[in-house]
Amino acid sequence: MFQAQAQWGLARTGQLELRGKQLRTPAFLPVGTYGNVKGVSPDQLAAVGAEMILANAYHLHDRPGEKDVVRFGGLHRFMSWDRLILTDSGGFQVFSLLDIAQLDDEGVSFRSPVDGRRLRLGPREVVEIQLALDSDIAMVLDHCPPLPADRAALATAVRRTTAWARAAREHHARHDRRGQAQFAIVQGGLDDDLRRRSAAELIELDFDGYAIGGLSVGEGSAALQAAAARYAPLLPPDRLRYLMGVGRPADVLAAIAAGFDVFDCVLPTRNGRHGTVFRGRGKIHLRSGRYRGAEGPLDEDCDCVACRGWQVGVLRHHLVVGDPLAGTLCTLHNLRFLFRLVERARAAIEAGTMPDLLDEWELPQPRPD
Amino acid sequence: MFQAQAQWGLARTGQLELRGKQLRTPAFLPVGTYGNVKGVSPDQLAAVGAEMILANAYHLHDRPGEKDVVRFGGLHRFMSWDRLILTDSGGFQVFSLLDIAQLDDEGVSFRSPVDGRRLRLGPREVVEIQLALDSDIAMVLDHCPPLPADRAALATAVRRTTAWARAAREHHARHDRRGQAQFAIVQGGLDDDLRRRSAAELIELDFDGYAIGGLSVGEGSAALQAAAARYAPLLPPDRLRYLMGVGRPADVLAAIAAGFDVFDCVLPTRNGRHGTVFRGRGKIHLRSGRYRGAEGPLDEDCDCVACRGWQVGVLRHHLVVGDPLAGTLCTLHNLRFLFRLVERARAAIEAGTMPDLLDEWELPQPRPD
Repeated sequence: MFQAQAQWGLARTGQLELRGKQLRTPAFLPVGTYGNVKGVSPDQLAAVGAEMILANAYHLHDRPGEKDVVRFGGLHRFMSWDRLILTDSGGFQVFSLLDIAQLDDEGVSFRSPVDGRRLRLGPREVVEIQLALDSDIAMVLDHCPPLPADRAALATAVRRTTAWARAAREHHARHDRRGQAQFAIVQGGLDDDLRRRSAAELIELDFDGYAIGGLSVGEGSAALQAAAARYAPLLPPDRLRYLMGVGRPADVLAAIAAGFDVFDCVLPTRNGRHGTVFRGRGKIHLRSGRYRGAEGPLDEDCDCVACRGWQVGVLRHHLVVGDPLAGTLCTLHNLRFLFRLVERARAAIEAGTMPDLLDEWELPQPRPD
Repeated sequence: MFQAQAQWGLARTGQLELRGKQLRTPAFLPVGTYGNVKGVSPDQLAAVGAEMILANAYHLHDRPGEKDVVRFGGLHRFMSWDRLILTDSGGFQVFSLLDIAQLDDEGVSFRSPVDGRRLRLGPREVVEIQLALDSDIAMVLDHCPPLPADRAALATAVRRTTAWARAAREHHARHDRRGQAQFAIVQGGLDDDLRRRSAAELIELDFDGYAIGGLSVGEGSAALQAAAARYAPLLPPDRLRYLMGVGRPADVLAAIAAGFDVFDCVLPTRNGRHGTVFRGRGKIHLRSGRYRGAEGPLDEDCDCVACRGWQVGVLRHHLVVGDPLAGTLCTLHNLRFLFRLVERARAAIEAGTMPDLLDEWELPQPRPD
């Protein structure tokens, strides 16, 4: 399934093979929560370099419901996307964004923020939703407590995450007929002992891949990058290592250096829709009056459709007059920006030039072990 | 410049050649008021068959201002569109949508609905704006009174439209250096005498093409189609005949049968953005709950990207969850629907099978002269 290839320090390139489809790593996963990356068509997504999209099992369960997705021929036809799809469980969204009505060892109950009807998700329900959706990779339901949380709350979440992962693993083994991969999510906040325990317990259950969840929730880049460096080595080197919720370019690059293979985040797409675009090592807000009449592309080096076809002041104009094309173009630029970065990281790992790329981004060199 | 080709009754196919670019007629012009068809990229527009886009001189004067467009390299670079561009003058918008502060034989003053600043448009100003924009075809400023209007008001509008057209023609002849074409707009409401007078006075001024303006303003399809049949013969057969503001498929087809060559309308694109799509001989509102879970494409016969890649219930889902892609796909479907219709009309005129196409749309056969 996953084959590591070139190695530089802890960083590696690799390839995931699943159901005849490939993902070259390091890779970024654009987020298509409801079955599409907002404002972007699948062919535009393929053109920026995407090989796998993330969709959300909880959101698709809420709308349109997995039964409708099955009726439409499964998630790939639903999304008009024949490359890889990973479905997140929705654990993060349910615990971070909603009022939980009830939480116990069997699952979590809450009301749909869309229409207020009662929804119930447990580890087995989430497996069944994802088997119905027929995504290529299914994330287990995890208990992801909002930070800051005290040690007891984090320990409870780790214990429950392991119990849910065991139930999900067994349920998946019994019901999967089509070779869907299943990944576990390590919890434990910023507590190293709990992270170690969580990883060890999940590795015991032999998943197809492992993610670090519950980071990138406001702890800041320095803490995130340090945590990525500490937690990547907890995950088995022969499985895909996935750092969830990370999409700031510097964070992605630091996490690649730490040994992670894949990343997802709404940031480049949500920002893009609102006219906030990556530029240099930062970002700019295109709505600002300072970009009125600004000539030249967003980024001289960028090969995206926005940079090739539109000048900065023209993109701003379309944003200001309310043309959705502006959001689409900015989204495509942000995605291409990240894909160019992971492509450069792949090349740098192969060529042994990661130190130069890290220097360029003013990131510390990882210490040799 | 314009060459009529096949003929069937009054209907004709033809080709406009301008600055090395072609427009095959009959043709529909998608509306890109502010320099882009909302939510649609130029390559998507070319893919549905568009050869000429309409942009609006008044709107671009208001935002971003023609000076900015010049700075960006002219309207073609601004729009990232190297095919033909026609700029409407804005007469229709100024007279229909805004509170006029002052109207006299020299022009019209009003406040920008965007920021309230005073704007002034006269026939020469509009020529200068369009020469700066460097569109391929420039429409003159016309006096387009909102209907219903009494005969005196219509007669004043015709008189002023002719006076403004004369001023615009002279100003254009003096200042055009790049072979921009200039079209006149016939006014006169539904008064046949005034239409005849308006057409005769404008033909005297020898424009490159002629439009019928001031129709499709709520008079209904029957009155519109009858007026199109009466007014097309007023325009010279060796020039492009343009019926402004018409985009309902049946109206377009009837107007083609009457002898018109080109059409524009915001309807297919504005409707599409809001999920109202052409289907059969009518239209449907995709947001309606009846399309929840609906399988199959919008139109089995349609070759557009929406119909090839998405089922009706999936398009509805993306619309309901607020994904701008839904509006883009519906816009592309509506445009492709119209382009397929004008392509079928071209073929039917060449093959002599227009009666069958008119029958299919339950339209009357034009009487032979």
